[in-house]
Amino acid sequence: MRAILMYGAGDVRVEEIPDPVLQQPTDAIVRIVRTCVCGSDLHPYHNMPASEDGTQMGHEFLGVVEDLGSEVTGLKRGDLVVASFAFQDNTCDFCREDVQASCRHGGFFSQAQAELIRVPQAAGTLVKLPVGEDSPLLPSLLTLADVYGTGYHAAKRADVNPRTTVTVIGDGAVGLLAVLSAKQLGAERIILMGRYKARTDLGREFGATDVVAERGEEGIAKVRELTGGDGTHAVLEAVGYMQAYEQALGVVRAGGVISRVGVPQYEEGAIGWGMFGRNLTLTGGPAPVRAYIDQLLPDVLDGKVEPGKVFDRTVSLDEVPDGYRAMDRREALKVLVRP
Amino acid sequence: MRAILMYGAGDVRVEEIPDPVLQQPTDAIVRIVRTCVCGSDLHPYHNMPASEDGTQMGHEFLGVVEDLGSEVTGLKRGDLVVASFAFQDNTCDFCREDVQASCRHGGFFSQAQAELIRVPQAAGTLVKLPVGEDSPLLPSLLTLADVYGTGYHAAKRADVNPRTTVTVIGDGAVGLLAVLSAKQLGAERIILMGRYKARTDLGREFGATDVVAERGEEGIAKVRELTGGDGTHAVLEAVGYMQAYEQALGVVRAGGVISRVGVPQYEEGAIGWGMFGRNLTLTGGPAPVRAYIDQLLPDVLDGKVEPGKVFDRTVSLDEVPDGYRAMDRREALKVLVRP
Repeated sequence: MRAILMYGAGDVRVEEIPDPVLQQPTDAIVRIVRTCVCGSDLHPYHNMPASEDGTQMGHEFLGVVEDLGSEVTGLKRGDLVVASFAFQDNTCDFCREDVQASCRHGGFFSQAQAELIRVPQAAGTLVKLPVGEDSPLLPSLLTLADVYGTGYHAAKRADVNPRTTVTVIGDGAVGLLAVLSAKQLGAERIILMGRYKARTDLGREFGATDVVAERGEEGIAKVRELTGGDGTHAVLEAVGYMQAYEQALGVVRAGGVISRVGVPQYEEGAIGWGMFGRNLTLTGGPAPVRAYIDQLLPDVLDGKVEPGKVFDRTVSLDEVPDGYRAMDRREALKVLVRP
Repeated sequence: MRAILMYGAGDVRVEEIPDPVLQQPTDAIVRIVRTCVCGSDLHPYHNMPASEDGTQMGHEFLGVVEDLGSEVTGLKRGDLVVASFAFQDNTCDFCREDVQASCRHGGFFSQAQAELIRVPQAAGTLVKLPVGEDSPLLPSLLTLADVYGTGYHAAKRADVNPRTTVTVIGDGAVGLLAVLSAKQLGAERIILMGRYKARTDLGREFGATDVVAERGEEGIAKVRELTGGDGTHAVLEAVGYMQAYEQALGVVRAGGVISRVGVPQYEEGAIGWGMFGRNLTLTGGPAPVRAYIDQLLPDVLDGKVEPGKVFDRTVSLDEVPDGYRAMDRREALKVLVRP
């Protein structure tokens, strides 16, 4: 089959590799119908040391079940399914506590930008979709694999509700879907911090009431000005850089929550009196996307929300290297792939 | 009146200073019946630069209302009252959101080790006690001013409940009362990390099911061993040193909460993938003690709990310098003062 491999920073290739096969009785093989490039794929695209062994890429996909291990229940060949970006048994104590990224039999996918994928813990990972391969809903359904559930996680962890004011830091796909999620959870005031007008326009469509293009101290001052000097109860941080964390500390209201879903690209940060004295909470992490699919799917199927609007370019598998480049240059917000 | 002043590290003096007077119509003057020395008073006792101007000390007190400003409602001269360690109007938006340490008209006391004290925002800060000056409950009632409410805050912020396993780091008064609070909130497994047997024995009396005397990596290994390798859902950090924060990171379960009530003696700490990847939450801060007094008072009055057991020495105002020394040398857990 054809698959995407990264050989180092900036070096993305399409290659012919062996088809995956069932290894465990709990596995499935899925033929990928839609996959995409994630903002988090850009971190290795910037940093990966060059190597002669390529690394398969991609963790978001929906597709058709081609083969099933003997112990997989609840699925059959031909089912159209969406997967969570992390696989899990969905039965262990961590899964039941909604910390599925820490599942006792779990792990992260990194083989989804391909024609086929082996899915461990298929029964706990794949969710059957009640639509066909030609459904116009596929882009929105694909966001359930990661970016929508991840934006929703930011909002849930920050306990966003109708009484909460919200700042979202980052106008990437996750940030924009954090806006959408905050709106779904009832927030009436949602300030989006982002610099790219096409993206922040989509953010307004998703529910942002204010857009702050400034960053750093200037951005902090702007958000404070919009909130009577106090900042917002919830800050959903969907970037992952230290500057975004510092911005979050600057715009959060006393007693408020900084909820991170951007993978932190730093090891240490300010957690002293500036955080403690104001009773701030820092939370977040890899989303239990599998748990959220059940909650988010109905509104997607009904067309009440259209998270798939974050995709603004569609490419074939052969064009994926161009897709990475376009996202890296901010020419594309999020690239959909039809293998 | 006589009052305690600190002139630098280790330099605590008893001095004659002018009596406080009403300054605002919202003030009260209280004659102090009981005050005490706090673990957090030991930080300046170690670090305060020497100065010719002494600094008044103390933030925990109960006493009798001597004088009232014209706008103070709900209190009268002669009332026996307990104060929260921070004063607040108890009506502003932050107070209503239970972030009373960030009250718009609030501040922290530092004049309680004395014969008299001026109490700003008296109506929002003082709570009338239905007992007399000679009540044997006074030590327990005094803990409502800070250490009991602070231990309770740690447990509340960590959402301790009957399904939560708990580790408490620190066997000072706050740590021991965090144990008591976790027990009151229904926790069935409470591991206390502390090295002083007399204190950890009191911790067992308050509800600790296990005691781990080891610290650092060894202590972490011990707690993990006690919890099937996973750590506990809640970690209540009642120390404030970096070593305690690192210990907290080591013993917290994936998806769990580190709730700090020890004032952090550091500015930066690990908040990278090690925290994010495990969906950990970091929370805590100065407790909204005023809000908790209403919740905690009934069980103290009924004698159902005896948080006052943390006091193991009683001194006069003149003996307060000895009291600091005894707490610093771990000869006393917490020193009660009868001015």
